[in-house]
Amino acid sequence: MSKTNRLIFLPLGGAGEIGMNMYLYGYGPAGKERYILVDVGVTFPTMDGTPGVDLIMPDTAYIEARLDRLEAIFITHAHEDHIGALGHLYGRLDVPIYTRKFTGAVARAKMEEHGQNSDRVEVIGKWPEQVELGPFKVGFMPVAHSIPEASGLVIDTPKGRIVHTGDFKLDPDPIVGEAYNPELYREIAKGGVQALVCDSTNVFSPIAGRSESGLGDNITKLMKDATGMVVATTFASNVARLKTLAQAGVDSGRSVVVLGRAMKKMLGYANFAGLIDSFPPVVDIEDARDIPRGSLMLLVTGSQGERRAASAQLANGKYLGLEMREGDTFLFSSKTIPGNEIGVGRIVNSYSEMGVKVVDDNSGDYHVSGHANRPDLEEIHGIFKPKMLIPMHGEHRHLRAHSELAEAKGIASIIAANGAMVDLGGDKPKIVENIQTGRLYLDGKRLIGAFDGVVLERMRLAMRGGVVVSLLLEDNQQIGESWAEVLGLPETESNQPSLQETLEREIDAELGKAKRGLLADDDQVEKAVLRTVSRVCKDLVGKKPVVKVLINRLVE
Amino acid sequence: MSKTNRLIFLPLGGAGEIGMNMYLYGYGPAGKERYILVDVGVTFPTMDGTPGVDLIMPDTAYIEARLDRLEAIFITHAHEDHIGALGHLYGRLDVPIYTRKFTGAVARAKMEEHGQNSDRVEVIGKWPEQVELGPFKVGFMPVAHSIPEASGLVIDTPKGRIVHTGDFKLDPDPIVGEAYNPELYREIAKGGVQALVCDSTNVFSPIAGRSESGLGDNITKLMKDATGMVVATTFASNVARLKTLAQAGVDSGRSVVVLGRAMKKMLGYANFAGLIDSFPPVVDIEDARDIPRGSLMLLVTGSQGERRAASAQLANGKYLGLEMREGDTFLFSSKTIPGNEIGVGRIVNSYSEMGVKVVDDNSGDYHVSGHANRPDLEEIHGIFKPKMLIPMHGEHRHLRAHSELAEAKGIASIIAANGAMVDLGGDKPKIVENIQTGRLYLDGKRLIGAFDGVVLERMRLAMRGGVVVSLLLEDNQQIGESWAEVLGLPETESNQPSLQETLEREIDAELGKAKRGLLADDDQVEKAVLRTVSRVCKDLVGKKPVVKVLINRLVE
Repeated sequence: MSKTNRLIFLPLGGAGEIGMNMYLYGYGPAGKERYILVDVGVTFPTMDGTPGVDLIMPDTAYIEARLDRLEAIFITHAHEDHIGALGHLYGRLDVPIYTRKFTGAVARAKMEEHGQNSDRVEVIGKWPEQVELGPFKVGFMPVAHSIPEASGLVIDTPKGRIVHTGDFKLDPDPIVGEAYNPELYREIAKGGVQALVCDSTNVFSPIAGRSESGLGDNITKLMKDATGMVVATTFASNVARLKTLAQAGVDSGRSVVVLGRAMKKMLGYANFAGLIDSFPPVVDIEDARDIPRGSLMLLVTGSQGERRAASAQLANGKYLGLEMREGDTFLFSSKTIPGNEIGVGRIVNSYSEMGVKVVDDNSGDYHVSGHANRPDLEEIHGIFKPKMLIPMHGEHRHLRAHSELAEAKGIASIIAANGAMVDLGGDKPKIVENIQTGRLYLDGKRLIGAFDGVVLERMRLAMRGGVVVSLLLEDNQQIGESWAEVLGLPETESNQPSLQETLEREIDAELGKAKRGLLADDDQVEKAVLRTVSRVCKDLVGKKPVVKVLINRLVE
Repeated sequence: MSKTNRLIFLPLGGAGEIGMNMYLYGYGPAGKERYILVDVGVTFPTMDGTPGVDLIMPDTAYIEARLDRLEAIFITHAHEDHIGALGHLYGRLDVPIYTRKFTGAVARAKMEEHGQNSDRVEVIGKWPEQVELGPFKVGFMPVAHSIPEASGLVIDTPKGRIVHTGDFKLDPDPIVGEAYNPELYREIAKGGVQALVCDSTNVFSPIAGRSESGLGDNITKLMKDATGMVVATTFASNVARLKTLAQAGVDSGRSVVVLGRAMKKMLGYANFAGLIDSFPPVVDIEDARDIPRGSLMLLVTGSQGERRAASAQLANGKYLGLEMREGDTFLFSSKTIPGNEIGVGRIVNSYSEMGVKVVDDNSGDYHVSGHANRPDLEEIHGIFKPKMLIPMHGEHRHLRAHSELAEAKGIASIIAANGAMVDLGGDKPKIVENIQTGRLYLDGKRLIGAFDGVVLERMRLAMRGGVVVSLLLEDNQQIGESWAEVLGLPETESNQPSLQETLEREIDAELGKAKRGLLADDDQVEKAVLRTVSRVCKDLVGKKPVVKVLINRLVE
């Protein structure tokens, strides 16, 4: 039987997209594999495709059907696209969760928030510590990234060692967390690496990445040169950057105030994990009001233009009694994630109207990426010398470019988008099955399937508006007049009867001339009303609304 | 009375935003000015803020109220953000329209499309030709841009000469249309320029712009090196680029096919205006099928990821019998306009899945901008040496940066966003009034105000879903059961009664225990139903829908 054992990799999210990472590894005879799951991430909805949705996460149906064979969940780091679905999906995936300490603090909070048992989160140390689960021995390999204690995974299996990088960059001095350690990686690679499953985010960035530590001087100079108040934003979980920004504030003679709950939470977790014993002193918001604005620096949330974050609130006026004025400086120590350009632009323009100087990352002086660039990826390929490379964490174009990069160096590779089950056990990766994958939407309190039609109906309403018609019938005759309620449709010209009046008149006329037999049949009544509403709306306002017909029949 | 004459500039669109350009110039005693209107543009809706809307344009209420004093409309060039609202708004603005020949062809087509009299479009020649209208003498000053015959305006008034640049760049060899001609501009500037009203789009681009003519060699090389079929896209109205792309196709030994109606139309107008007598030969789509794909080049619409354009259709499968295959090349000879990143990314990823090589403008080898960069703006300031500079065509941050650029060189300047009326007659620009401006939405056939609430209601429906409740009352008692129609809301858990059932039961219970007095009052019935629906939806699905209540009363 062991002859037929296979070692498989199956992305359920995060391959063919940037977001909602979820990867399954399996070992055993086909159909009897034991599994471990890596990361349980979310992706964020947009008005464009998912209006009203709160969060998007991978559909876990495939795992749920095989839950008795799932050994554990491993979380590589605490970014939302890797951990954000934990509380929402844990009810369906009740197995032990392994993390490092900082990630564990975030994971526990998420579990508690959703009424899950936070004791299921088990914190383990970094490599060479390993946890043995069925056919797997798994350890956390420290990597540098834009959040503390980010880790890759070393997954030992009977068919060899897999290195799953997680999100990473090569940073010899990341300020917080472990530095790039090529010696450690060479040590891990020593016995041979069967497969390197590798971050692809920055494969299109042609120049080697820069260190987090290179920013402090630039930021300090900016803050020293600024005359008014300085407000800086970055990603709340980038604790190293928070430290750099706060230190620059202090070094430029400013009192530093941290605003925004997400940042405070992250600093709390970092403190708990013993990562920031040397964080610069900060002052309380209540003390800030007595400090001259030229001596003040605020560290705020909202680097992506989020409407409710501190950055946006300050752009609209006062926030907690503070306000921006002409001559102040606002620093985006962050990049704008594609899709957020308009939201960020809105804030920049508001500040421009106020006379606030806005500094962004265009110069490259105030932000570095958390992902390995193309030359860094090549360096990592060279260190691990894997038998095969599977690109992950990228849109299809990133996966393709990363795969081509590896193959150009003689490393076997394959593009495996969500649902492509790859056999990692041979000399080359091979797609052995294609699994139906999907997305779950958190919509209010409910998790719904992306194809349930709920969001589609909302999008139709947003594009076309709606008309609801209520009718009363008795003895197969219409009683009284119809009622047409119009939702989100433009009005008729002002010298014309209103759309509602016209709809009601035309529906009544249509039903008035109908035979009794038609009025006896709900389907036919509905069709006649739909036809009438469509015609009237097309004629008068040029739109084709969503129509619902409510037929009430009076029964003696 | 002439003592009190003033020269004013009033942006109604295009200042504080990029899009829907519309600028009013006036001369005369306050309240009795004679006007000319420059450009009648649109901006494009987004699912984010204007779902279902077809086009957005400036509200012309201010001009309509003063129509007897409007002399004429001038259109600087045929880009949609300068001409796109002409057909829609002309019914409200019936005055002569002046354009150059190519723009005139586009303007006439737009007028005819909307049943307007296309004879109102009067084509005039370029500078030094001038048309005299009341206190104004206006001429079209040729500029290079990304569309043929783009022009600035030289507006002579009793208070001096205004140069309104329109959209422009400095291109000594723009392939189609007039080259940058500093001698001509110096000639125009000779008698002094009172005000330069100037394009601000690229004020953040620090390096001088490059010429359209620098692209041909790069594009030809790319097409020669490509083995399969080559498909290239750019903005349909960029006739120079169409020519460069087609020429590169021919020079690389390919037969060129033009697909996409917008491109064909633009080539037709250019032909009519006598601008492209030397356009490379193209073949018909029906002949293309017999040509080996390695010898074929398609020129297609859809550089911004538009879902219905040829680029997107080819990304989804066949288009007019043609399809992309592994090894083919797709060239974006265009930049992605902010906000369109996700749509363009969708196409790039689809091509990646097919194995099509995608080349974009990241290298700068295959696209140049149509707008003047910062050093080019400084060059133009230096040539015209205006008494004052008014930045236009930019978001607030662009206007601010452009204004600061001018002031640093000693040119008086002011930031005038939409609605700010500027007196241009003195030594410095001065805001003398603030006018209420707004936007009109083309929604189906109707032009509605942005604040009419129609689109807001649709956005609410998209975010929250809806519930419509129909009730029947007789003699102040409920007859039968209520009917709750649910729109775009998630369902309850599968082992629970449906949301609709629960809503109906709870509404009936609520009304069942109500006093007769309450049931006699429609407002109170509605309030009771709203309260019940909100509570049930919040409890069961965690959303707060838009609710409509239809109360039918039976009257004997």
